[in-house]
Amino acid sequence: MVTLQGEASDPANQNWLPCANVTIPNPLITGSSNLILRLEMGDPKLFVPYWKMMSDKCSVVIEGWKFMSHESDASNVCQYMLPELGDAIKRIHSLVHNAAIQDKHIIVGTGSTQLFHAAWFALSSSDSVRPINIVSAAPFYSLYLDGVKALRSGLYQWAGDAATYDKDEPYIEMVTSQNNPVVRSASQGKLIHDVAYYWPQYTPIIHHADHDLMLFTFSKCTGHAGSRIGWAIVKDIEVAKKMVHFIQVSTIGVSKESQIRAAKILGVVCDSYQSLGPKGSEHFFDYGKRLLRERWDRMRQVIGQCEVFTVAKPSSAYCNFTKESFETNSAFAWVKCEGGIEDCGTYLKNLGILARPGRLFGVGPEFARISMLSTNDEFDELLTRLLNARREYN
Amino acid sequence: MVTLQGEASDPANQNWLPCANVTIPNPLITGSSNLILRLEMGDPKLFVPYWKMMSDKCSVVIEGWKFMSHESDASNVCQYMLPELGDAIKRIHSLVHNAAIQDKHIIVGTGSTQLFHAAWFALSSSDSVRPINIVSAAPFYSLYLDGVKALRSGLYQWAGDAATYDKDEPYIEMVTSQNNPVVRSASQGKLIHDVAYYWPQYTPIIHHADHDLMLFTFSKCTGHAGSRIGWAIVKDIEVAKKMVHFIQVSTIGVSKESQIRAAKILGVVCDSYQSLGPKGSEHFFDYGKRLLRERWDRMRQVIGQCEVFTVAKPSSAYCNFTKESFETNSAFAWVKCEGGIEDCGTYLKNLGILARPGRLFGVGPEFARISMLSTNDEFDELLTRLLNARREYN
Repeated sequence: MVTLQGEASDPANQNWLPCANVTIPNPLITGSSNLILRLEMGDPKLFVPYWKMMSDKCSVVIEGWKFMSHESDASNVCQYMLPELGDAIKRIHSLVHNAAIQDKHIIVGTGSTQLFHAAWFALSSSDSVRPINIVSAAPFYSLYLDGVKALRSGLYQWAGDAATYDKDEPYIEMVTSQNNPVVRSASQGKLIHDVAYYWPQYTPIIHHADHDLMLFTFSKCTGHAGSRIGWAIVKDIEVAKKMVHFIQVSTIGVSKESQIRAAKILGVVCDSYQSLGPKGSEHFFDYGKRLLRERWDRMRQVIGQCEVFTVAKPSSAYCNFTKESFETNSAFAWVKCEGGIEDCGTYLKNLGILARPGRLFGVGPEFARISMLSTNDEFDELLTRLLNARREYN
Repeated sequence: MVTLQGEASDPANQNWLPCANVTIPNPLITGSSNLILRLEMGDPKLFVPYWKMMSDKCSVVIEGWKFMSHESDASNVCQYMLPELGDAIKRIHSLVHNAAIQDKHIIVGTGSTQLFHAAWFALSSSDSVRPINIVSAAPFYSLYLDGVKALRSGLYQWAGDAATYDKDEPYIEMVTSQNNPVVRSASQGKLIHDVAYYWPQYTPIIHHADHDLMLFTFSKCTGHAGSRIGWAIVKDIEVAKKMVHFIQVSTIGVSKESQIRAAKILGVVCDSYQSLGPKGSEHFFDYGKRLLRERWDRMRQVIGQCEVFTVAKPSSAYCNFTKESFETNSAFAWVKCEGGIEDCGTYLKNLGILARPGRLFGVGPEFARISMLSTNDEFDELLTRLLNARREYN
């Protein structure tokens, strides 16, 4: 199984790495042990140094009179989308070959968060008396549950883990992995593929994803979370139109400044692969993959040494983009506390590590999710603290 | 009565200008008569030439590695707000004296549209079995109705014109005018003041608005609708926190690029009033007020000459900011078809003018709303077409 999203790798169904007694070359000790390490969110700060290196190529200049209208292209289904962004999205998918875009509609949103709300709206029926069920295989992205529960829509409702869903009713399934849509009675199901992490720094690109409704985000692609730019690739024009309607009544479109910057940066990534680039420079996805691989290697060493936690064994596959086989470098580490520690989130908190507890994702309290996308300093400190667990535990 | 929002001036309750037979100095004829003039939205394109003049002062440069995180300031209630934007918002209100901000919380949203959704969420009770009623005095902003109806929330529901609301139940009232909150039993009512147009180019600044929850937008303040930046000024910290929670589950914050640009441009407006500026330059609000005044003068002349329509007589008041009395320059003209024409929207459409029909705002079909904020060319063409009505009508 190839995992496309950090949340989708179900730790309960996987092999856990034994606690091998390997040595960390340089025990990492830093002076910030009185600060809590906030690793509960997936803010992808690890890519900042890359964009500093590329700074001269990536700046955007926006004059005071530019992009003043909230419309862009009245002839497009997504009227507020800048044509430059639509072109850049098509170009990056053509480069990476991770999504089939031909004859589909691109809908831009304020992050993929707004887009899954828009997709739920579009796939619900306003005529239906009962709200449609939304399911996702645990551990699911906690914001699906938060979003559905907070807003109390009359159109849709949360119905929990897709693996245990057995109602004979229509449903919407949030699928975060290419290979394991769980629910069997697919005739009643409408699928939304949240493929935020289907980029070659995280996971092998095994094929063109070609689903009815796919969600991507600039945040996870290049690390620009502050821009709040996501895009949906949608087959059915009526679904696309309803998503646009949702975004228009919710926010009347999407920031033009973010759109033009996303277009610029996606373009720089594509340019780099189509030229030699500055001497000694590395292409973005290669850089990201190397960095995450190094982090995962160090993480596994520490986990093995500390003898308190386990992490899932990653899957491996041949990547059509990098032309090599490699193991998935998940954006999140699902750690499991061993040896009778019941609440992994609280245990980590006592070590000064704020992780997101398993129960928010529909799995047991022995699991917690730690971001692998922090800054280098934060990541070093994380490893130090995980090593401290060993001392406290033994 | 001083009107703060284009939608709030109730044409049904006002005096209508008689069709005086004044002469237009230069009858305006252009060659684009086969194109429909889209004046149903309030895209404020009329301010573009000002920002072209100021272009060298207003550019923002955003390097590739900047603003990559979706957080900004963990110590602020609105964690995703850039401190620069918070400071600029305080500064512009201090300049114009249109809103009391001391001891209040600033919450940034993806336009004020996201903020009224957030405010409805924050003022609803998640414990309540029944959704709370939302009312607004007709003609209300049509997106209130569209937003409530489309999303089918279990937390709130649309209850129509505030003037005819007589239920003995809790409600939320959208107030768009400082002086006429309509509903009497205010003990059960929670008020949201949508004061988007309470800026001196549109209306005299009669006092510091000092309400529990006020909504402003960058779009109507300076004309930058494409940025999708709005801000709420909120008294109660619990309401502010709930609004932030809504925005976090809906879009995980607000575009950083838009935030930094709004901070820059609001700062340029403030700077201009605190220095002489370039030779011959005009301060933004003075420019905007002059432009709108000229448009309204020409509009009234044409309306008077064409003998088909009437428009409401504007109110006048002393403005504390400009230190003079002036008549409100509404962002929208509410035109009323006279002489037995029943459907003003359709009549205007036959003239090649796309207006928003009165029924969307809770008033009769004899009314329609025309944007006064179009480009100069579009405005000239509007007047030409309104004059054509006279020829067709007589």
